[in-house]
Amino acid sequence: MQLTSFTDYGLRALIYMATLPEGKQTSITEVTEIYGVSRNHMVKIINQLSRLGFVAATRGKNGGIRLGIKANQIVIGDVVRKMEPLQLVDCSACVITPACRLRKALYDAVQLFLKELDRYTLADLVDGNSPLYEIILSEPPVAINIK
Amino acid sequence: MQLTSFTDYGLRALIYMATLPEGKQTSITEVTEIYGVSRNHMVKIINQLSRLGFVAATRGKNGGIRLGIKANQIVIGDVVRKMEPLQLVDCSACVITPACRLRKALYDAVQLFLKELDRYTLADLVDGNSPLYEIILSEPPVAINIK
Repeated sequence: MQLTSFTDYGLRALIYMATLPEGKQTSITEVTEIYGVSRNHMVKIINQLSRLGFVAATRGKNGGIRLGIKANQIVIGDVVRKMEPLQLVDCSACVITPACRLRKALYDAVQLFLKELDRYTLADLVDGNSPLYEIILSEPPVAINIK
Repeated sequence: MQLTSFTDYGLRALIYMATLPEGKQTSITEVTEIYGVSRNHMVKIINQLSRLGFVAATRGKNGGIRLGIKANQIVIGDVVRKMEPLQLVDCSACVITPACRLRKALYDAVQLFLKELDRYTLADLVDGNSPLYEIILSEPPVAINIK
Protein backbone atom coordinates (compact mmCIF):
# COMPACT_ATOMS: atom_id res chain seq x y z
CA MET A 1 0.00 0.00 0.00
CA GLN A 2 1.77 3.08 -1.27
CA LEU A 3 0.67 6.45 -2.47
CA THR A 4 1.31 6.82 -6.20
CA SER A 5 4.47 8.79 -6.90
CA PHE A 6 2.09 11.35 -8.42
CA THR A 7 0.50 12.13 -5.05
CA ASP A 8 3.76 11.61 -3.16
CA TYR A 9 5.70 14.15 -5.23
CA GLY A 10 2.66 16.40 -5.41
CA LEU A 11 2.72 16.66 -1.62
CA ARG A 12 6.48 17.20 -1.62
CA ALA A 13 6.13 19.96 -4.21
CA LEU A 14 3.43 21.65 -2.13
CA ILE A 15 5.60 21.45 1.00
CA TYR A 16 8.44 23.10 -0.89
CA MET A 17 6.18 25.85 -2.22
CA ALA A 18 4.83 26.47 1.27
CA THR A 19 8.34 27.38 2.44
CA LEU A 20 8.72 30.18 -0.13
CA PRO A 21 8.75 33.71 1.28
CA GLU A 22 5.52 35.69 0.75
CA GLY A 23 5.30 36.98 -2.83
CA LYS A 24 8.01 34.66 -4.15
CA GLN A 25 7.56 31.98 -6.74
CA THR A 26 9.60 28.99 -7.80
CA SER A 27 9.93 26.91 -10.98
CA ILE A 28 9.29 23.34 -11.95
CA THR A 29 13.03 23.01 -12.53
CA GLU A 30 13.77 24.06 -8.96
CA VAL A 31 11.24 21.63 -7.49
CA THR A 32 12.59 18.90 -9.75
CA GLU A 33 16.14 19.57 -8.63
CA ILE A 34 15.48 19.61 -4.92
CA TYR A 35 13.66 16.27 -4.95
CA GLY A 36 15.71 14.61 -7.73
CA VAL A 37 12.65 13.53 -9.70
CA SER A 38 12.21 13.47 -13.48
CA ARG A 39 11.20 16.82 -14.92
CA ASN A 40 8.57 15.26 -17.19
CA HIS A 41 6.91 13.65 -14.21
CA MET A 42 6.98 16.88 -12.21
CA VAL A 43 5.45 18.84 -15.13
CA LYS A 44 2.45 16.50 -15.07
CA ILE A 45 2.15 16.73 -11.30
CA ILE A 46 2.30 20.54 -11.28
CA ASN A 47 -0.27 20.67 -14.09
CA GLN A 48 -2.61 18.55 -12.04
CA LEU A 49 -2.02 20.63 -8.90
CA SER A 50 -2.80 23.73 -11.00
CA ARG A 51 -6.00 22.26 -12.34
CA LEU A 52 -7.04 21.51 -8.77
CA GLY A 53 -6.23 25.07 -7.71
CA PHE A 54 -3.53 24.10 -5.22
CA VAL A 55 -0.87 25.70 -7.42
CA ALA A 56 -0.96 28.96 -9.38
CA ALA A 57 1.20 28.97 -12.49
CA THR A 58 2.23 32.10 -14.41
CA ARG A 59 3.61 31.71 -17.90
CA GLY A 60 6.17 33.85 -19.67
CA LYS A 61 9.52 35.42 -18.93
CA ASN A 62 8.73 36.22 -15.31
CA GLY A 63 6.57 33.14 -14.94
CA GLY A 64 6.75 30.60 -12.19
CA ILE A 65 4.73 28.54 -9.78
CA ARG A 66 3.53 29.14 -6.25
CA LEU A 67 0.69 28.00 -4.01
CA GLY A 68 -2.71 28.85 -5.47
CA ILE A 69 -4.34 28.87 -2.02
CA LYS A 70 -2.86 29.86 1.33
CA ALA A 71 -1.02 26.99 3.01
CA ASN A 72 -3.35 27.10 6.01
CA GLN A 73 -6.28 26.46 3.66
CA ILE A 74 -4.79 23.45 1.90
CA VAL A 75 -5.99 20.39 3.79
CA ILE A 76 -3.73 17.36 3.32
CA GLY A 77 -6.68 14.95 3.26
CA ASP A 78 -8.16 16.99 0.41
CA VAL A 79 -4.98 16.85 -1.62
CA VAL A 80 -4.83 13.07 -1.22
CA ARG A 81 -8.55 12.70 -2.03
CA LYS A 82 -8.11 14.65 -5.25
CA MET A 83 -4.77 13.25 -6.41
CA GLU A 84 -4.89 9.62 -5.37
CA PRO A 85 -6.91 6.67 -6.72
CA LEU A 86 -8.43 5.35 -3.51
CA GLN A 87 -9.92 2.04 -4.52
CA LEU A 88 -7.67 -0.29 -2.57
CA VAL A 89 -8.53 -3.41 -4.52
CA ASP A 90 -9.71 -3.96 -8.07
CA CYS A 91 -13.04 -5.73 -7.64
CA SER A 92 -14.05 -5.53 -11.31
CA ALA A 93 -13.11 -9.10 -12.23
CA CYS A 94 -13.68 -10.74 -8.86
CA VAL A 95 -16.37 -13.42 -8.75
CA ILE A 96 -17.45 -12.68 -5.17
CA THR A 97 -17.84 -8.90 -5.65
CA PRO A 98 -21.67 -8.85 -5.39
CA ALA A 99 -21.48 -10.50 -1.97
CA CYS A 100 -18.18 -9.13 -0.70
CA ARG A 101 -18.23 -7.44 2.70
CA LEU A 102 -14.51 -6.69 2.57
CA ARG A 103 -15.13 -3.80 0.15
CA LYS A 104 -17.24 -1.94 2.69
CA ALA A 105 -14.64 -2.54 5.42
CA LEU A 106 -11.83 -1.25 3.19
CA TYR A 107 -13.91 1.74 2.11
CA ASP A 108 -14.63 2.70 5.72
CA ALA A 109 -10.97 2.25 6.64
CA VAL A 110 -9.91 4.59 3.81
CA GLN A 111 -12.40 7.20 5.05
CA LEU A 112 -10.78 7.13 8.50
CA PHE A 113 -7.36 7.35 6.88
CA LEU A 114 -8.46 10.52 5.04
CA LYS A 115 -10.17 11.94 8.10
CA GLU A 116 -6.89 11.75 9.99
CA LEU A 117 -5.13 13.58 7.15
CA ASP A 118 -7.88 16.21 7.28
CA ARG A 119 -6.45 17.22 10.66
CA TYR A 120 -3.42 18.72 8.91
CA THR A 121 -3.10 21.69 6.62
CA LEU A 122 -0.01 22.33 4.55
CA ALA A 123 0.82 25.14 7.00
CA ASP A 124 0.93 22.60 9.86
CA LEU A 125 3.72 20.77 8.05
CA VAL A 126 5.79 23.88 7.50
CA ASP A 127 5.09 26.57 10.09
CA GLY A 128 7.87 26.86 12.65
CA ASN A 129 9.66 23.89 11.07
CA SER A 130 13.12 25.45 11.10
CA PRO A 131 14.94 22.18 10.28
CA LEU A 132 12.90 22.06 7.06
CA TYR A 133 13.83 25.64 6.16
CA GLU A 134 17.48 24.88 6.90
CA ILE A 135 17.48 21.89 4.58
CA ILE A 136 15.77 23.76 1.78
CA LEU A 137 17.92 26.88 2.07
CA SER A 138 21.14 24.89 2.26
CA GLU A 139 20.31 22.56 -0.61
CA PRO A 140 22.68 23.34 -3.45
CA PRO A 141 20.98 23.37 -6.86
CA VAL A 142 21.75 20.22 -8.84
CA ALA A 143 23.95 20.98 -11.84
CA ILE A 144 22.02 20.34 -15.01
CA ASN A 145 23.54 20.15 -18.45
CA ILE A 146 21.52 22.45 -20.66
CA LYS A 147 22.74 20.98 -23.96
CA MET B 1 -3.08 3.63 -3.11
CA GLN B 2 -3.82 -0.03 -3.58
CA LEU B 3 -3.21 -3.13 -1.56
CA THR B 4 -0.58 -5.32 -3.22
CA SER B 5 -2.17 -8.18 -5.14
CA PHE B 6 -0.42 -10.38 -2.57
CA THR B 7 -2.58 -9.05 0.28
CA ASP B 8 -5.62 -8.67 -1.94
CA TYR B 9 -5.63 -12.29 -3.10
CA GLY B 10 -4.54 -13.41 0.35
CA LEU B 11 -7.73 -11.92 1.76
CA ARG B 12 -9.80 -13.42 -1.05
CA ALA B 13 -8.25 -16.84 -0.41
CA LEU B 14 -9.05 -16.58 3.30
CA ILE B 15 -12.65 -15.57 2.53
CA TYR B 16 -13.00 -18.62 0.31
CA MET B 17 -11.53 -20.93 2.94
CA ALA B 18 -13.86 -19.48 5.57
CA THR B 19 -16.84 -20.70 3.53
CA LEU B 20 -15.69 -24.33 3.62
CA PRO B 21 -17.83 -26.68 5.70
CA GLU B 22 -16.31 -27.72 9.05
CA GLY B 23 -13.62 -30.37 8.55
CA LYS B 24 -13.29 -29.76 4.80
CA GLN B 25 -10.22 -28.55 3.03
CA THR B 26 -9.57 -27.08 -0.38
CA SER B 27 -6.58 -26.88 -2.72
CA ILE B 28 -4.46 -24.11 -4.17
CA THR B 29 -5.81 -25.14 -7.58
CA GLU B 30 -9.39 -24.61 -6.43
CA VAL B 31 -8.65 -21.16 -4.97
CA THR B 32 -6.73 -20.27 -8.14
CA GLU B 33 -9.65 -21.32 -10.31
CA ILE B 34 -12.35 -19.46 -8.44
CA TYR B 35 -10.48 -16.16 -8.51
CA GLY B 36 -8.81 -16.60 -11.91
CA VAL B 37 -5.35 -15.75 -10.62
CA SER B 38 -2.02 -17.27 -11.63
CA ARG B 39 -1.22 -20.49 -9.79
CA ASN B 40 2.39 -19.47 -9.15
CA HIS B 41 1.23 -16.29 -7.49
CA MET B 42 -1.32 -18.13 -5.35
CA VAL B 43 1.30 -20.70 -4.25
CA LYS B 44 3.42 -17.86 -2.85
CA ILE B 45 0.44 -16.25 -1.17
CA ILE B 46 -0.70 -19.48 0.48
CA ASN B 47 2.87 -20.19 1.63
CA GLN B 48 2.97 -16.81 3.30
CA LEU B 49 -0.47 -17.30 4.87
CA SER B 50 0.77 -20.65 6.19
CA ARG B 51 3.92 -19.14 7.66
CA LEU B 52 1.73 -16.59 9.41
CA GLY B 53 -0.52 -19.35 10.76
CA PHE B 54 -3.68 -18.13 9.01
CA VAL B 55 -3.67 -21.22 6.77
CA ALA B 56 -2.92 -24.84 7.66
CA ALA B 57 -1.48 -26.87 4.81
CA THR B 58 -1.27 -30.65 4.73
CA ARG B 59 0.98 -32.31 2.20
CA GLY B 60 0.54 -35.63 0.44
CA LYS B 61 -2.21 -37.55 -1.31
CA ASN B 62 -4.98 -36.37 0.99
CA GLY B 63 -3.34 -33.01 1.48
CA GLY B 64 -4.96 -29.65 1.13
CA ILE B 65 -5.35 -26.27 2.70
CA ARG B 66 -7.78 -24.82 5.20
CA LEU B 67 -7.85 -22.05 7.78
CA GLY B 68 -5.18 -22.47 10.42
CA ILE B 69 -7.16 -20.48 12.98
CA LYS B 70 -10.93 -20.19 13.43
CA ALA B 71 -12.45 -17.50 11.19
CA ASN B 72 -13.72 -15.58 14.20
CA GLN B 73 -10.16 -15.31 15.47
CA ILE B 74 -8.66 -13.98 12.25
CA VAL B 75 -8.74 -10.20 12.50
CA ILE B 76 -8.69 -8.47 9.09
CA GLY B 77 -6.47 -5.64 10.35
CA ASP B 78 -3.96 -8.26 11.50
CA VAL B 79 -3.88 -9.96 8.13
CA VAL B 80 -3.24 -6.62 6.41
CA ARG B 81 -0.59 -5.65 8.98
CA LYS B 82 1.28 -8.89 8.40
CA MET B 83 0.90 -9.18 4.61
CA GLU B 84 1.13 -5.60 3.39
CA PRO B 85 4.06 -3.17 3.22
CA LEU B 86 2.58 -0.17 5.00
CA GLN B 87 5.09 2.57 4.35
CA LEU B 88 2.99 4.82 2.12
CA VAL B 89 5.87 6.79 0.70
CA ASP B 90 9.53 5.96 0.16
CA CYS B 91 11.37 8.57 2.22
CA SER B 92 14.81 6.98 1.83
CA ALA B 93 16.07 9.32 -0.90
CA CYS B 94 14.06 12.41 0.01
CA VAL B 95 16.09 15.45 1.02
CA ILE B 96 13.52 16.78 3.51
CA THR B 97 13.07 13.46 5.38
CA PRO B 98 14.80 14.60 8.62
CA ALA B 99 12.35 17.51 8.93
CA CYS B 100 9.26 16.02 7.31
CA ARG B 101 6.03 16.17 9.32
CA LEU B 102 4.06 14.45 6.60
CA ARG B 103 5.54 11.08 7.54
CA LYS B 104 4.03 11.24 11.02
CA ALA B 105 0.64 12.29 9.59
CA LEU B 106 0.67 9.41 7.10
CA TYR B 107 1.79 6.96 9.78
CA ASP B 108 -1.05 8.00 12.09
CA ALA B 109 -3.54 7.79 9.23
CA VAL B 110 -2.42 4.24 8.44
CA GLN B 111 -2.88 3.30 12.11
CA LEU B 112 -6.50 4.49 11.97
CA PHE B 113 -6.99 2.60 8.71
CA LEU B 114 -5.80 -0.60 10.40
CA LYS B 115 -7.83 0.08 13.55
CA GLU B 116 -10.98 0.19 11.45
CA LEU B 117 -10.05 -3.14 9.85
CA ASP B 118 -9.49 -4.55 13.34
CA ARG B 119 -13.25 -4.25 13.83
CA TYR B 120 -13.77 -7.17 11.44
CA THR B 121 -12.89 -10.79 11.74
CA LEU B 122 -12.94 -13.15 8.78
CA ALA B 123 -16.13 -14.62 10.26
CA ASP B 124 -17.81 -11.20 10.01
CA LEU B 125 -17.25 -11.25 6.24
CA VAL B 126 -18.71 -14.70 5.80
CA ASP B 127 -21.22 -15.60 8.53
CA GLY B 128 -24.80 -15.48 7.29
CA ASN B 129 -23.61 -14.17 3.91
CA SER B 130 -25.82 -16.45 1.83
CA PRO B 131 -25.18 -14.55 -1.45
CA LEU B 132 -21.48 -15.36 -0.99
CA TYR B 133 -22.20 -19.04 -0.42
CA GLU B 134 -24.46 -19.10 -3.48
CA ILE B 135 -21.74 -17.62 -5.67
CA ILE B 136 -19.10 -20.00 -4.41
CA LEU B 137 -21.28 -23.09 -4.63
CA SER B 138 -22.54 -22.24 -8.11
CA GLU B 139 -19.14 -21.35 -9.52
CA PRO B 140 -18.23 -23.97 -12.13
CA PRO B 141 -14.59 -25.06 -11.91
CA VAL B 142 -12.52 -23.50 -14.67
CA ALA B 143 -11.36 -26.08 -17.22
CA ILE B 144 -7.61 -26.45 -17.09
CA ASN B 145 -5.53 -28.23 -19.68
CA ILE B 146 -3.30 -30.62 -17.81
CA LYS B 147 -0.86 -31.16 -20.69
